[in-house]
Amino acid sequence: MDSEQRVERQLDFLLELDRLKTVLRQTWLTDGSRRENDAEHSWHIAVMAVVLAEHSADPGIDLLKALKMLLIHDVVEIDAGDTFAYDEVGAQDKEQRERAAAERIFGLLPNGQAAAFRDLWEEFEARRSPEARFAAALDRLQPILHNYHTQGKAWLAHGITARQVVARNQHIAEGAPRLWDYARRIIDEAVARGYLAGGGS
Amino acid sequence: MDSEQRVERQLDFLLELDRLKTVLRQTWLTDGSRRENDAEHSWHIAVMAVVLAEHSADPGIDLLKALKMLLIHDVVEIDAGDTFAYDEVGAQDKEQRERAAAERIFGLLPNGQAAAFRDLWEEFEARRSPEARFAAALDRLQPILHNYHTQGKAWLAHGITARQVVARNQHIAEGAPRLWDYARRIIDEAVARGYLAGGGS
Repeated sequence: MDSEQRVERQLDFLLELDRLKTVLRQTWLTDGSRRENDAEHSWHIAVMAVVLAEHSADPGIDLLKALKMLLIHDVVEIDAGDTFAYDEVGAQDKEQRERAAAERIFGLLPNGQAAAFRDLWEEFEARRSPEARFAAALDRLQPILHNYHTQGKAWLAHGITARQVVARNQHIAEGAPRLWDYARRIIDEAVARGYLAGGGS
Repeated sequence: MDSEQRVERQLDFLLELDRLKTVLRQTWLTDGSRRENDAEHSWHIAVMAVVLAEHSADPGIDLLKALKMLLIHDVVEIDAGDTFAYDEVGAQDKEQRERAAAERIFGLLPNGQAAAFRDLWEEFEARRSPEARFAAALDRLQPILHNYHTQGKAWLAHGITARQVVARNQHIAEGAPRLWDYARRIIDEAVARGYLAGGGS
């Protein structure tokens, strides 16, 4: 492959990624005007990583690697769609759907890059490294913030309980313990304000 | 400031950033369904930086620094709004509006971080380093790609000519010469297909 073909292949991948802007999540923008899409969510948590890096459980984290993971972690949802964090039925075949998507989408890249991106995505999914655990913590913290600041819009719509939120998100503590302390306070406050059901399901 | 207050101040800034998702650009998504917002644009060019880093004019570029710039380069538009690249009237007071916005928005962060982010934003705006020139090249390349793949939707709506597109974007060559070669081919092809007016204005 000459360098002109290589650029074209890279741009084919990057143009395909434009579709992530139309994959909607369950989370709402904080002004409550509409649901958030995967591309802007990915941007938001990447900026969070830059600002909050000092709160990583591992102070020697490779921030560039964490950013790469955050930027591409949801790309598979172009094919596989967004699976709501509390959707137990959707979770059953999520891994299989997303793995096939990773093969196709990262496979648009030149071979070496395709493998590197697939590896980064798998490392993130498995929370296999300090960078992956920190990145995964931000991916879980952001929707908690958005839910709190929209008076529990997605939580209430789906009848989610505090026990579910804690169970699903407590791994934030592995990546960023101080941010999990903060999230716990917000979850308690959300229950006190009626944004989130207090009991277990 | 104790660490709890510091986290709260950082999160106040990050929540304010959510508003960037409602700042619309002139560029359309490649499926033509709607105009793009600043947050998803920022995500897209950050992924471009990861994929296309090898085409930087300077092979020794600090990719982490370029990514930080790309992630925050449009944050000022929360206050200052998007100024279309070919809007000569809007360009007159753009710098002043954006500088005031940078003061307010980055000023939400703890002091050291506020200064670091303002410096990064200014370095990007002035294209003062290899990282800034590479980042600026991607910021200009992406709307060219989107215009081409929407049959010139924004170019035709605003009566833009090829001469304007070349004049406004030729600094891509300083940051990524191979990508400027590619952009030139696309601009020529856009004229040939009637997506862009061929003459000068």
